[in-house]
Amino acid sequence: MGFFAQLDAAIKKNNSLLCVGLDPNPSLMPPGVDALTFNKTIIDATADIVCAYKPNLAFYEAAGQQGWDVLKQTINYIPKGIPVIADAKRGDIGNTSQAYAAAIFENLGAGAVTVSPYLGLDSVEPFLKNYPDKGVFILCRTSNQGATDFQSLPVKIDNLEMPLYQAVARKAEQWNTLNNVGLVVGATYPAEMQELRKTHPDLPFLVPGIGAQGGDIKLTLETGLNTEGKGIIVNSSRQILYASRGSDFAKNAALAAETLRQEINLYRQPCNKEN
Amino acid sequence: MGFFAQLDAAIKKNNSLLCVGLDPNPSLMPPGVDALTFNKTIIDATADIVCAYKPNLAFYEAAGQQGWDVLKQTINYIPKGIPVIADAKRGDIGNTSQAYAAAIFENLGAGAVTVSPYLGLDSVEPFLKNYPDKGVFILCRTSNQGATDFQSLPVKIDNLEMPLYQAVARKAEQWNTLNNVGLVVGATYPAEMQELRKTHPDLPFLVPGIGAQGGDIKLTLETGLNTEGKGIIVNSSRQILYASRGSDFAKNAALAAETLRQEINLYRQPCNKEN
Repeated sequence: MGFFAQLDAAIKKNNSLLCVGLDPNPSLMPPGVDALTFNKTIIDATADIVCAYKPNLAFYEAAGQQGWDVLKQTINYIPKGIPVIADAKRGDIGNTSQAYAAAIFENLGAGAVTVSPYLGLDSVEPFLKNYPDKGVFILCRTSNQGATDFQSLPVKIDNLEMPLYQAVARKAEQWNTLNNVGLVVGATYPAEMQELRKTHPDLPFLVPGIGAQGGDIKLTLETGLNTEGKGIIVNSSRQILYASRGSDFAKNAALAAETLRQEINLYRQPCNKEN
Repeated sequence: MGFFAQLDAAIKKNNSLLCVGLDPNPSLMPPGVDALTFNKTIIDATADIVCAYKPNLAFYEAAGQQGWDVLKQTINYIPKGIPVIADAKRGDIGNTSQAYAAAIFENLGAGAVTVSPYLGLDSVEPFLKNYPDKGVFILCRTSNQGATDFQSLPVKIDNLEMPLYQAVARKAEQWNTLNNVGLVVGATYPAEMQELRKTHPDLPFLVPGIGAQGGDIKLTLETGLNTEGKGIIVNSSRQILYASRGSDFAKNAALAAETLRQEINLYRQPCNKEN
């Protein structure tokens, strides 16, 4: 079963579009709790509330080889039915991207990855073609302020003028011959999300940017869902992981996740943009 | 002493613009030699021939936590006078990029890093501002075929039209308030390199793409050097590391490196593009 089919199954089983970002940050974690214990506790508390987990590799690499070990053990610990997206934002020349793909899909055993488009097709192809059962989310319109620096620039492609992020989405659609491509589209830019949904009705969106980054849930769902009321998953990291720094952190994380799941579900209905 | 001053010192000491990419690939390495031994042997054989080493993180991450340990030990083993560029091509939202910067500059102890520009200023800033003595090479015009997919697209920025890679270089120049920024410019696109050198006479270029990727040394030097005969370092990985797979691999790597150093030096002279 391919990644997106697994994701659909998890969405149905837990009635959830919520992805929890597993980003252990020592300065925000409860004192005295190590990263692996923290992750396991968060997973135990939220595994029936989420549709996916998304560890960002940066927070593990900051702790060096020990961090990599924690990451691997964390991924192993996640219940089999819940897909794992390695948020790695990788992208390099072909033979090097293949090494990254091996790291993420083989060594770590993640089900999907985020990749950067800047180097073009041959930097993304090893992830796409050599691992057809894995998912590949291409950075399109990111949630951060600096996203406007380049992603908003008007470009000319195929004799059409559009912002760079639209050109990336256009290429991503062309590269999606195995139905294993999605886009990263930040909740902080709802107008752009709406435009992307219109031009790419079938591409799945991984949506960061709600909570600490300020994205709005109602707007995200209204603009990001496809006509079948599907097609997006919404990530939250800090808002859930660090709901409390006390010994009750797991309980509060579960509560924050459940609240968010319900809030998302409130706005989750088939909406036909044409009506 | 900042990274670029250290690099200048190494260039002078070894009379070399050659950077060797330390990319241990099990399928190309001499049989029976582990990655750490391989790297140490290559370093012993080439340390007086190069101006820098550039390990690409992908080849270490493919081996998981053990690979990270090999990378760290490799960086520790490199003689103090020779700067290390971690070829990581990272870039994420601010707090995450800070975790990557900690991984690369603090945990690994590298002197410089390569970063991707797609997420804009706040994705690059933690590397630049929080570690002013480190070097940051921003991907501009990469050496691979897919570079044309987005980097060549005409964009409009500050009311000017230029290819995206020129817009990236323009921003990089603006972000270079601490003189710790360089660009990655592939040897496989000499016309683009020439144009970038003209518009950015002072930015240092890290140049991949000679050897296995087909870039031409003479053209690279002619187009990439600044008017003082400086401003570029030329990377080679496979051509040197895998000059031989026999027990004589170190000797052959040294010979390949020395040949390349001399070939580069042959074309290395102050050239004033105006004459």
